[in-house]
Amino acid sequence: MTTSRLEAFSDGVLAIIITIMVLELKVPEEPTLRALWDETGTGLLTYLLSFVYIGIYWNNHHHMFQIVRRVDGAVLWANLTLLLSLSLYPFTTAWMDDAINEYGWDEHTPVVVYGVNLLFAALAYYVLQLAVFRAEGGDSQLREALGSDLKGKLSPVLYVLGIVAAAFLHPAVGIVFFVAVAIIWLVPDRRLEQYVVEHQA
Amino acid sequence: MTTSRLEAFSDGVLAIIITIMVLELKVPEEPTLRALWDETGTGLLTYLLSFVYIGIYWNNHHHMFQIVRRVDGAVLWANLTLLLSLSLYPFTTAWMDDAINEYGWDEHTPVVVYGVNLLFAALAYYVLQLAVFRAEGGDSQLREALGSDLKGKLSPVLYVLGIVAAAFLHPAVGIVFFVAVAIIWLVPDRRLEQYVVEHQA
Amino acid sequence: MTTSRLEAFSDGVLAIIITIMVLELKVPEEPTLRALWDETGTGLLTYLLSFVYIGIYWNNHHHMFQIVRRVDGAVLWANLTLLLSLSLYPFTTAWMDDAINEYGWDEHTPVVVYGVNLLFAALAYYVLQLAVFRAEGGDSQLREALGSDLKGKLSPVLYVLGIVAAAFLHPAVGIVFFVAVAIIWLVPDRRLEQYVVEHQA
Amino acid sequence: MTTSRLEAFSDGVLAIIITIMVLELKVPEEPTLRALWDETGTGLLTYLLSFVYIGIYWNNHHHMFQIVRRVDGAVLWANLTLLLSLSLYPFTTAWMDDAINEYGWDEHTPVVVYGVNLLFAALAYYVLQLAVFRAEGGDSQLREALGSDLKGKLSPVLYVLGIVAAAFLHPAVGIVFFVAVAIIWLVPDRRLEQYVVEHQA
Repeated sequence: MTTSRLEAFSDGVLAIIITIMVLELKVPEEPTLRALWDETGTGLLTYLLSFVYIGIYWNNHHHMFQIVRRVDGAVLWANLTLLLSLSLYPFTTAWMDDAINEYGWDEHTPVVVYGVNLLFAALAYYVLQLAVFRAEGGDSQLREALGSDLKGKLSPVLYVLGIVAAAFLHPAVGIVFFVAVAIIWLVPDRRLEQYVVEHQA
Repeated sequence: MTTSRLEAFSDGVLAIIITIMVLELKVPEEPTLRALWDETGTGLLTYLLSFVYIGIYWNNHHHMFQIVRRVDGAVLWANLTLLLSLSLYPFTTAWMDDAINEYGWDEHTPVVVYGVNLLFAALAYYVLQLAVFRAEGGDSQLREALGSDLKGKLSPVLYVLGIVAAAFLHPAVGIVFFVAVAIIWLVPDRRLEQYVVEHQA
Repeated sequence: MTTSRLEAFSDGVLAIIITIMVLELKVPEEPTLRALWDETGTGLLTYLLSFVYIGIYWNNHHHMFQIVRRVDGAVLWANLTLLLSLSLYPFTTAWMDDAINEYGWDEHTPVVVYGVNLLFAALAYYVLQLAVFRAEGGDSQLREALGSDLKGKLSPVLYVLGIVAAAFLHPAVGIVFFVAVAIIWLVPDRRLEQYVVEHQA
Repeated sequence: MTTSRLEAFSDGVLAIIITIMVLELKVPEEPTLRALWDETGTGLLTYLLSFVYIGIYWNNHHHMFQIVRRVDGAVLWANLTLLLSLSLYPFTTAWMDDAINEYGWDEHTPVVVYGVNLLFAALAYYVLQLAVFRAEGGDSQLREALGSDLKGKLSPVLYVLGIVAAAFLHPAVGIVFFVAVAIIWLVPDRRLEQYVVEHQA
């Protein structure tokens, strides 16, 4: 099976997820900068964070399927599981947002749930990679391109640390861990890019 | 006529349907796990169920149009009818959700209507297959690939049983039937996959 | 310029328009068939009507750009104007819906405005055809394929009649005219299809 | 790396942005033309304005990536930044709308914020061009095609003037500047079109 329709469908879902989060932003009731900050400040910041996450996944997904040539049913379902986890971002983002706006840092649960959502997506992406390795057989080009995959292994660890920190220390500490993962990935995955350049140019 | 634009349009519609259902999820008012479960528990479960259904249709649609080479106006309209039936999932899902949240299992109608929607989609998919057979003429590759199409014939029967059970027995029994169909289909359609591998590789 | 990206973008916009109208459907407050009919009956019927219209435009758009090979800036903007007119369908549909639900057939304005929206889209489609003719130059294949274009010329006339009837006679008479146009077009455009089959097969 | 998936994803995001703004339009409560104008008049005009902006960006983006052959990670992220800025249009448009509806021209802030959003997008587009130049190396075809890029340099200047005018003179004067930019760009970018025709036909 070719990957073109899997890519097209994923592009569609990711495009929608990244865009509908803006519908969750509440328009400030007063026409002042203060109202914009008070009522929508948290919303804009978490929108930015979730936008960056979805952008990262799209970026890595894009790189992955530039190398992958063969997919099977297991890859299709692993991909759908990843999309399911990402489709929950607008929901968990909105809940965290509301809680921070109303209760400040007093409430830990929504930040923990947001972290669990991030972790779920990271694991789904990892499973997708495994499914691709299997579909490609022993000589997986993706596996070769990924190398030791340090970032891929570090992310779930940082998410778990963030979840634990948010649950038992302070929600803001958890968010620091989550932001750290985003920053690590913002540096695009040179390994895959390098591989593509070397083997396809 | 080639199938590329039909596939692109269907991908777009399915991507949107699968994603906007998350907009129907109500963000819990309290920042607690209990509120998450009480206010959004049913919503999350039915979201998952409808996500899986749309994922199954996308998967089967994908497999079908990897084999199909020729389409005509009848196929385009059969495809649009399928998309119409699927586009109603967010609506019937939300209604069932609300009813279960508010009335528990006392009210049968929304579950019955949800089942009718599922049945409508299954029949529309069946009609789409027939339209494709006709467009491809006597030597339809899809017909050959589908074989006896046991699952395709079993699904409407199970939906009807679920509707009857929801109407006259208990809504939860109906839902058990609906979930059963999802599980049957979650095993991807090996027949088509096999056919593609054998005839295209 | 090739047409692939124009088609992809149009597919995206049409897919979203056809799908978001379902978000305008209000979930009935009571879990009964009577409530479904009373609260959402009009909504479902007008949803169906607008879905069919968008489906028709997608269908004709699809056929048109299977023949068209050359586009220029004027075609891109004519296409965007068509998309603009279609993107207003959810809005005018919802307004007509609300009015019929609340005032029955006493109020003419929203039906008239809906008709004006339909007329706007028909004219935009006509302008798009002209822009394509011009871009293709003297030997436009599309012009040849369209022939006398009876349907294309009949539609605006029927819309105008519907608007006049809704304004001065009765809103329901206007809607009869609008439904008539949909039925005329539901028979897919054999001319173009024929042409494609003859010249490309 | 090829540009096809970057284009597909951008098409998806732009298609959604251009379409969901219609969801922000409030359906008038009365079934009269007066209510349509009073309650939705501003909304329709700013919808039109933002639709035209997104259409312009899609158009230019389309032209740009018809010339561009090579992209790298920096281009992907510059493109995502552009999409982020554009995804905020529905939000800032809705805020400006609400403020004008409720306070007339008394409040400057939302118009200024709208202008800042427009400026942000223009700068992001400019950065995207720079990233493309760099990815293509010394012999960038895009750079050659753009020539002196007068419009691209004029737009940010007009946006800044509009922002200053909205802040210190009158919001309506700011909007005049913003509309002026839209009109300048509505004339499609003949330079790129010319280049494509000359070098690809």
